[in-house]
Amino acid sequence: MFEQLGLIGCGLMGGSFALALKRAGLVRRVVGYSKSPSTTERARQLGVIDVEAPSALLAVSGADLVLIAVPVAATEATLKAIRHILTPEMLIMDVGSTKAGVVQAAREVLREQVGSFVPAHPIAGLERGGIENADPDLYRDRQVILTPIERTRTHQLQRAHAVWKAIGSHVSEMSPDAHDAAFAAVSHLPHVLAFALMNGILGQAQAAQLLSLGGPGFRDFTRIAASDPKVWRDILLTNRSELLRQAQAFRGALEAFEQAIAAGDGETLEKLIGTASQARAHWRISSGKPHF
Amino acid sequence: MFEQLGLIGCGLMGGSFALALKRAGLVRRVVGYSKSPSTTERARQLGVIDVEAPSALLAVSGADLVLIAVPVAATEATLKAIRHILTPEMLIMDVGSTKAGVVQAAREVLREQVGSFVPAHPIAGLERGGIENADPDLYRDRQVILTPIERTRTHQLQRAHAVWKAIGSHVSEMSPDAHDAAFAAVSHLPHVLAFALMNGILGQAQAAQLLSLGGPGFRDFTRIAASDPKVWRDILLTNRSELLRQAQAFRGALEAFEQAIAAGDGETLEKLIGTASQARAHWRISSGKPHF
Repeated sequence: MFEQLGLIGCGLMGGSFALALKRAGLVRRVVGYSKSPSTTERARQLGVIDVEAPSALLAVSGADLVLIAVPVAATEATLKAIRHILTPEMLIMDVGSTKAGVVQAAREVLREQVGSFVPAHPIAGLERGGIENADPDLYRDRQVILTPIERTRTHQLQRAHAVWKAIGSHVSEMSPDAHDAAFAAVSHLPHVLAFALMNGILGQAQAAQLLSLGGPGFRDFTRIAASDPKVWRDILLTNRSELLRQAQAFRGALEAFEQAIAAGDGETLEKLIGTASQARAHWRISSGKPHF
Repeated sequence: MFEQLGLIGCGLMGGSFALALKRAGLVRRVVGYSKSPSTTERARQLGVIDVEAPSALLAVSGADLVLIAVPVAATEATLKAIRHILTPEMLIMDVGSTKAGVVQAAREVLREQVGSFVPAHPIAGLERGGIENADPDLYRDRQVILTPIERTRTHQLQRAHAVWKAIGSHVSEMSPDAHDAAFAAVSHLPHVLAFALMNGILGQAQAAQLLSLGGPGFRDFTRIAASDPKVWRDILLTNRSELLRQAQAFRGALEAFEQAIAAGDGETLEKLIGTASQARAHWRISSGKPHF
């Protein structure tokens, strides 16, 4: 049981965490701060937070649990804004989709306090963000990856495991670098491809007609293209090198298709599709521990 | 009301059409043929067809409605197999995802009978095909595009409109070429991208680990990658030039992302994502007529 959750960033991710903790009876009071005062006010009106804080510092003041739920690139500035008030007893976590940059910022900004910071990435979300969509079930049966470093205190890491578990998530650990490499492949690149497909169509004279013909396949393929521009700008930029490496691997795979299609090589094309199709048909979303 | 549906190809698409017609009381008897006798038998056991035919010719014999529901590249051979028994009264349709090649084959094979052939493309499907997944509701509230040519008989075109409407579809018309150009953009290319993403990951040493980390975004983005290799081989090859043109447009859009990411140009990147995100957030799947 926590006395006070200091929530920095009252959006979908932060709001859902607060609601989940409240419902599970894990927190007595949520003090929230968002860059936009109207968002903070709305979060209180919706009962997601109990008290509006006029600054990140005041949201953290008196907290024993801090969640930083801001676009990834704003993490460093947020840590700087609150570092003076942090105590060794506070558990501090983020929810960013990239981890190497966050961990580096935390080392530099938090210094001897870095042991209380447990970097977290819940594999959950919605293309429609915002406090209005906050949902206490967002993290239920979803994976949460923690990316501790050697200086992370064992006690705080255990508390982080416990709090996510208590709201129904399945928790595992990876190194920050391995995390970023993996999510470049299965999340960041797919987002870029979905964005690029939309833009490729929008650049054509017949765009409106083309879009009107999209069916269920188009709907699901492009769902993630509706994601928030600021959030995804940060994710893509903070995972630049791994993302470009994955884009390279993808280009190679795409070229194999284009060559087989251009050559009218049905045998090769069927094999290429067969490889993808078989793997995808056997794939299941993992709600448990990754298989490694 | 039709006396007999001659169904050639007892898979998901053909089986669902038969079930829908039966439920709507639009057909007295369904005679079905599939290349694999065990599929035909299974279709009868499941009640999708009433009579098993040992050949396409015998499925068509006595039919007043014929549906060709085979992989696109098999359409020509199918038309050749049945042309001697076709009568001007029969309405003949297909369900292929590409239309220019089908129309050309129909002109050449059917000659003076081509007026009874109404090329159709229902925008519906499932990545898991097969007669076991046949569903009388597959076409409900889905678009069906008819691509008549100048020689298509008005009476047969009207009957085609009526039968799809009667099972809940929303019917519109396009030229075969405009159809293929449009679906290269909103269906065929997305399939290629989903296949290529899977193959790009599968080619990496850590493939199993990477795949285990895919979340809801990955699930939806790659759903169509599980599609049938033979069916999609045919679709991609029969729409080769439009598809490669769309792949080119996509590559341009992807390069814009890669350049902004490599340059760390957050402003451009946010704009690129914003364009895609705004368009996708306002997009709705169309169950009615396309907006043109």
